[in-house]
Amino acid sequence: MEVAQPVTELRDLLDEGQDPQLKAFCESFHPAALAEHLEEMEPEERLMVLTKLEPQFRAELLGHLEPNAQIETVELFSDSELARTVTYMPSDERVDLLKILPEDRVEEVLRTVAKAEREDILRLGAYEEGTAGAIMTSEYATVTKDLTAREALDRLRMEALDKETIYVAYVVDDQRRLIGLVSLKDLVIAKANTPVEDLMTVDPVVAYTYEKQEEVARRLSQYDLIAIPIVNPNNVLVGIVTFDDVLDVTEAETTTDFHRMAAAGLMTTSLREASIWLLYQKRVPWLLILVFMNVFSGYAISRHEATIEQYVALVFFLPLLIDSGGNAGSQSATLMVRALATGDVRIPDWLRLLGREVLVALAIGISMGVAVSAVGVFRGGPDVAVVVAATMVLVVFTGSLIGMLLPFGLTWSRLDPASASAPLVTSLADIAGVLIYFGIAAWYLELQPMG
Amino acid sequence: MEVAQPVTELRDLLDEGQDPQLKAFCESFHPAALAEHLEEMEPEERLMVLTKLEPQFRAELLGHLEPNAQIETVELFSDSELARTVTYMPSDERVDLLKILPEDRVEEVLRTVAKAEREDILRLGAYEEGTAGAIMTSEYATVTKDLTAREALDRLRMEALDKETIYVAYVVDDQRRLIGLVSLKDLVIAKANTPVEDLMTVDPVVAYTYEKQEEVARRLSQYDLIAIPIVNPNNVLVGIVTFDDVLDVTEAETTTDFHRMAAAGLMTTSLREASIWLLYQKRVPWLLILVFMNVFSGYAISRHEATIEQYVALVFFLPLLIDSGGNAGSQSATLMVRALATGDVRIPDWLRLLGREVLVALAIGISMGVAVSAVGVFRGGPDVAVVVAATMVLVVFTGSLIGMLLPFGLTWSRLDPASASAPLVTSLADIAGVLIYFGIAAWYLELQPMG
Repeated sequence: MEVAQPVTELRDLLDEGQDPQLKAFCESFHPAALAEHLEEMEPEERLMVLTKLEPQFRAELLGHLEPNAQIETVELFSDSELARTVTYMPSDERVDLLKILPEDRVEEVLRTVAKAEREDILRLGAYEEGTAGAIMTSEYATVTKDLTAREALDRLRMEALDKETIYVAYVVDDQRRLIGLVSLKDLVIAKANTPVEDLMTVDPVVAYTYEKQEEVARRLSQYDLIAIPIVNPNNVLVGIVTFDDVLDVTEAETTTDFHRMAAAGLMTTSLREASIWLLYQKRVPWLLILVFMNVFSGYAISRHEATIEQYVALVFFLPLLIDSGGNAGSQSATLMVRALATGDVRIPDWLRLLGREVLVALAIGISMGVAVSAVGVFRGGPDVAVVVAATMVLVVFTGSLIGMLLPFGLTWSRLDPASASAPLVTSLADIAGVLIYFGIAAWYLELQPMG
Repeated sequence: MEVAQPVTELRDLLDEGQDPQLKAFCESFHPAALAEHLEEMEPEERLMVLTKLEPQFRAELLGHLEPNAQIETVELFSDSELARTVTYMPSDERVDLLKILPEDRVEEVLRTVAKAEREDILRLGAYEEGTAGAIMTSEYATVTKDLTAREALDRLRMEALDKETIYVAYVVDDQRRLIGLVSLKDLVIAKANTPVEDLMTVDPVVAYTYEKQEEVARRLSQYDLIAIPIVNPNNVLVGIVTFDDVLDVTEAETTTDFHRMAAAGLMTTSLREASIWLLYQKRVPWLLILVFMNVFSGYAISRHEATIEQYVALVFFLPLLIDSGGNAGSQSATLMVRALATGDVRIPDWLRLLGREVLVALAIGISMGVAVSAVGVFRGGPDVAVVVAATMVLVVFTGSLIGMLLPFGLTWSRLDPASASAPLVTSLADIAGVLIYFGIAAWYLELQPMG
């Protein structure tokens, strides 16, 4: 693969001890690209490369490594190296790193860094995982409304070096309450002596520290913002969430939804790197639960042993019918899970959507019933055809409603709608299908004159 | 719902003919928020509101409406109103709008707008859907490397009004080839007489017009860029794609993946707004295809009629076994589809992942075989238990491999891996399951002394 080249070059430069060339070679990459190459190396090599670099670049690089590679590398750092590097990391990445480090190392870092940074780390680390507070950064620039455009620009010039973004400056009052924002663009365009007050946007879009990160992502995306200010309930500005964090959150959230849909638990590691044991452990529980759920369908069938012995042809259609119900159900569930995740559909819509689903499911069921009845006549005679067609309509109908209602029910119970996985919905629909099929068969075929 | 309030207010102001108040009320909203309220109104009301607003604000508002609402509204515009509004829209949104308009209206618009804009519309409209070219905008600022920081800032000040982003200025040579970029932040921080050449980043991350939009989204996200420059094969700068477009692309792509996974075709409309007919039309084809595929499993069963008549208990386990194979398969497929979509896993990984899947699938299969054999003894005697347990191992194994390999096969054939939908994988695994089950049953039970 083409990525092997830079790694070889890095190794050669390390072996030859050519530090200035190594440094220049590293700096010719974007940190994100160099991080990918470093991930291919052994932790010890990675450490050697990192020690040759400027602290600023090293910190950026570390932030771009996968969590596993981060841990491996940082374990080799001395406490003072770690504390120094951490100082240069953006506050959100720093907190993420410290969260995955062993407690004694975190304490050592906290002991070593300056008081202001320590307080910042503790403050950001205190927010609940998954909330705006947990992903926000404290690198942002503030101005007051009485500054002129030129004064504000001068202020940004001074602050810019350690702020993650200065494209927007937040206007705060003397209590640090957010009263507006002004973009760097507006400051640059404005006449030098225009007061910030005349340039600022009042009532900016904000998010609260306790809001869910998906909600924050959705809002930033809806309003096309580079960053969204995070305030506490008293409207005091405490951080910002930037668009690149939102891109990461969105990707992670969607992956979680997919994994839930696969009934495979929550995986935070890469699928490529996942061990056999991890995959086994994550995948087997739901499959086992579904096996035991399905024992009910076996029991239901066993109660109709006599009917089956009389009409063995009924068995031919069993996989087809229960599959159809499961398929219709997992279709409905998948569409609904996604619509709930993007906010296209919300809880109060459920009744209207149920009404529509009833009609769509009936239409699909009837189409499939007609299709299958042709096969039914041919293979099992007219009696079996009637039973199979009627079952198909009901099974597709039931499966679709289960698939549609389950994600709503989970959302309603404050669970993740994506837990309405295809396997779960399919198994529920299948159990319902077996009950419907043999119920109809026993009832209808007993009415017939001959056995 | 709380959104009803502003709509009522808008209607009242319209009825009372209080245009200045209406305008002020509208401008108190972010266009994205106002667009949501307007979507709740009738097209005629929406048009009346829009005509009271400044062209700039009107154009932004229009860009934030859902495609359906856009069309409904724009149909009521006169040609000249339409042409005027279009002039104020960002170039990418403008092209998106014109793509969904009837041809005669597009021609009328093209006839009316200025030559430069006409050429821009035609140029952007010519790129293939789904590529970088089709989502890029031509609103960006360029500078040359011999300007000083102050001159560059002056240039941006002049250009800023009709550029979508000036946070980054692109440095081009006299052939408009991209040679670097400089951020507004760097220009603001730099001494006034520093040449752009000394400030610019050379070899910036770019994307080509023909690259797939998901690839562009991934790159922008990886490098945390506000915008990514789009160049043609000669390295001439032709547009940029901004982070907000990438957020939209990512959301749309993921929704497409979910819909494919549901075997429900591609839906671009909101699920909430989708009509019964549309849902029927999108959902029924795959379900019907799967019904006819499943006729094979019926045929396979019918060949074992004698075995079934002898051991009716085999039927009790049929739903359980085929469900388990289908569930394991749809788990594997879902995990793989997502990993392929995020780039976590790529085609060359397939052999290594297959090796791992074989081991994981065997381990899961054996666990489930053990679990089900307990039920098997209890319900059908030791012979049936052996058959059921052996089938379980093989069915889970086969299902998992189908689920893992199908997304790879589709990617390999340049199809969307997400077409390896849960219903398709489940049905394939179920057919394999039926063949395995009755194959093992017929073979093993015939060996037994008593019938």
